[in-house]
Amino acid sequence: MTTTTSSHHTAMLPALAELQQAYAELQAKGLKLDLTRGKPSAEQLDLAEPMLALPGVGVHTDENGTDARNYGGLDGGITIRRIFAELLDVPVEQLLAGGNASLTTMHDVVAFAELFGFADSPKPWAREDKVRWICPVPGYDRHFTICEAFGIEMVPVPMTPDGPDAEAVAALVAADPTIKGMWVVPTYSNPDGAVISAEVARALVSMPAAAPDFRILWDNAYAVHHLTDDEVTSPNAVALAAEAGHPDRVLLFASTSKITFAGAGVSFLGSSPANIAWFKKHLSVASIGPDKLNHLRHAMFFGSADGVREHMRKHRAILAPKFEAVVEILTERLGGYGIASWTEPKGGYFVSLDVAPGTAARVVQLAKEAGIALTPAGATHPYGKDPEDKNVRLAPSMPPLNEVRTAMDGVATCVLLAAAEAAQA
Amino acid sequence: MTTTTSSHHTAMLPALAELQQAYAELQAKGLKLDLTRGKPSAEQLDLAEPMLALPGVGVHTDENGTDARNYGGLDGGITIRRIFAELLDVPVEQLLAGGNASLTTMHDVVAFAELFGFADSPKPWAREDKVRWICPVPGYDRHFTICEAFGIEMVPVPMTPDGPDAEAVAALVAADPTIKGMWVVPTYSNPDGAVISAEVARALVSMPAAAPDFRILWDNAYAVHHLTDDEVTSPNAVALAAEAGHPDRVLLFASTSKITFAGAGVSFLGSSPANIAWFKKHLSVASIGPDKLNHLRHAMFFGSADGVREHMRKHRAILAPKFEAVVEILTERLGGYGIASWTEPKGGYFVSLDVAPGTAARVVQLAKEAGIALTPAGATHPYGKDPEDKNVRLAPSMPPLNEVRTAMDGVATCVLLAAAEAAQA
Repeated sequence: MTTTTSSHHTAMLPALAELQQAYAELQAKGLKLDLTRGKPSAEQLDLAEPMLALPGVGVHTDENGTDARNYGGLDGGITIRRIFAELLDVPVEQLLAGGNASLTTMHDVVAFAELFGFADSPKPWAREDKVRWICPVPGYDRHFTICEAFGIEMVPVPMTPDGPDAEAVAALVAADPTIKGMWVVPTYSNPDGAVISAEVARALVSMPAAAPDFRILWDNAYAVHHLTDDEVTSPNAVALAAEAGHPDRVLLFASTSKITFAGAGVSFLGSSPANIAWFKKHLSVASIGPDKLNHLRHAMFFGSADGVREHMRKHRAILAPKFEAVVEILTERLGGYGIASWTEPKGGYFVSLDVAPGTAARVVQLAKEAGIALTPAGATHPYGKDPEDKNVRLAPSMPPLNEVRTAMDGVATCVLLAAAEAAQA
Repeated sequence: MTTTTSSHHTAMLPALAELQQAYAELQAKGLKLDLTRGKPSAEQLDLAEPMLALPGVGVHTDENGTDARNYGGLDGGITIRRIFAELLDVPVEQLLAGGNASLTTMHDVVAFAELFGFADSPKPWAREDKVRWICPVPGYDRHFTICEAFGIEMVPVPMTPDGPDAEAVAALVAADPTIKGMWVVPTYSNPDGAVISAEVARALVSMPAAAPDFRILWDNAYAVHHLTDDEVTSPNAVALAAEAGHPDRVLLFASTSKITFAGAGVSFLGSSPANIAWFKKHLSVASIGPDKLNHLRHAMFFGSADGVREHMRKHRAILAPKFEAVVEILTERLGGYGIASWTEPKGGYFVSLDVAPGTAARVVQLAKEAGIALTPAGATHPYGKDPEDKNVRLAPSMPPLNEVRTAMDGVATCVLLAAAEAAQA
């Protein structure tokens, strides 16, 4: 579970004029800093540098004898699948390794559902009058973009520290046959760092659904991306769904994008045998097979599931101080005014900051005009619209630590100024 | 232009009993040979073996300063795009580098047209009552599979040694607004090795089309895959289409699948600025960017467009003797009976063999029962149905030369036996 720290309302905000002066000084620094996206830093990418010479001349055969250079093998390389089958706790037969982006696989799953429907769909989704989708908020903007691109109407439900509000979800899904799907980021969710509890996971895979083809796209993007000694594991949704009698409900996604190289990793899809067969049937029209050399390269670099875990501790050593700096500066600068709260994630890539309601867009604008790029306000909500205009996603992974500190100090000034402006108005 | 050699009808077929005896001897050899797919041989893949240690530790920056390891860059790596812009004669701004398969890009173009329509489509193709598509025959089975998967009705037109029959195509396209697209393999076409003439290319890009969003998917899969000193270049369709006032008509595809590694190459999409913008808009929902490290790896390996041309001559040295063996054995064994004709391609991956009408399926079956796997009869036609049941695609690239010889000798026996059986019936 992630911790959310509220700044208790005990102190008066500094005077508007004083904050305006501080902001003018911030602007005068001429900063050019970027906290917009969850991109690994160059230092993190350097951790996987030995991969750039792998698999090495003369090495191109996977453990089952497959020539990884040639066509074929829609399932992906066997060794990398074995390693991630262990990490994701999915039988290797039910886990495909693919291209460089799980986002593409998620897109393809929705595209295939739209074009052809799932095996249990009454018709292709594109032929339905309306398709709706549950989007826990705050959430990941690229998930929302997929829904929007396909004209899927997004229904927000609130996140809790234990995952999506399962009661709210169950009520919607039971009543409305147009609700065909749901996003879940089970581990260290984007942006609020929540880890789904076993109870919530069980509720989501067990609840009755009015749509016969209701699916949960379970984006376990941060499965092994710990920031503390408490290396949590989110519940195994594929197995839980099977136990609950809904084996085809969950499609699990993961990738090495934030493990090895963000643009040159390996993606994974885990699900029931029926869903895997369905996906492969449609995928086989578009592909003869994924890049198995990149699979072999990754398998050699990791060696084993433990190799992945070891490697992630090196990421943590780089990332944890940045997250600590964010929380430290937010506490120092915003603590005690009662105008903001923020998460203290135990993993993942984001800190979710709630500012004074009605001021998130203003905070992002002030930061921008002071040379600090933040994710657009509203990005964590469907259609880019945060009804309370209060959530700001902070992504401290990319800049060096000293820049994270400088940027966060600037952000704090913007949060205070926006709050003071709003109080004045 | 490819040469088609007919065996002039001058000699009598050997007696059925004699051929049955020859076939029994063939079966007794217990062969296990495969001429089914256009896969590079291990020897060809070995040519790119140095790539397996590229880009090398510490090397991860493209010529424009991009860190090829990180997210981003939907266009693909700049250096590999420059190299292939020269080879494909498309401005680099109009050429994207993508993942490991141009098949995926072709599929995605059709999928985006179905789901969203092109910029000039009245509506998404999936909402049209009917969409039809011109398929030159014989052609590539995976093209046909894409059409079939999307429920696009295929309309066959005959291939000629100069490309698709342009007059037949023009008549169909001018009259029928449901005809939305067409496949073309301009260079060393699959399977008959034809190179499209400038005249045919100009006719196809100039002809009036009843559909406002008519497109030609120009699959230049064998652009640099020569088998002789005559290194032909097919006409530049993207430029010709712009000249003809139909700049958005052509989408050009290519890849390094049969240049470096069949499963781990780089694909390319070249088209008008408007089509490229359209494709990127939809692609951006599914991808943050392609594997730019693989782009850099390829760029370093080739060095330049001339590097690609050099490399292809090494492929030719391996492939040409296999193609010569096919033609030599067909000539020796089938010449003079008037029952078969075959192409003598100057490039590409296939020999197209026409056997006695009504016997192609029987030839494939006889070969199979003698341990020689051939592409299924009919595969070169839409829906797998060759109306004359006469075309057999031969793919001699994968087996070693001695196996190609053994297999072709066996195939010749099967062709003769099937013809004799048919004459008897």
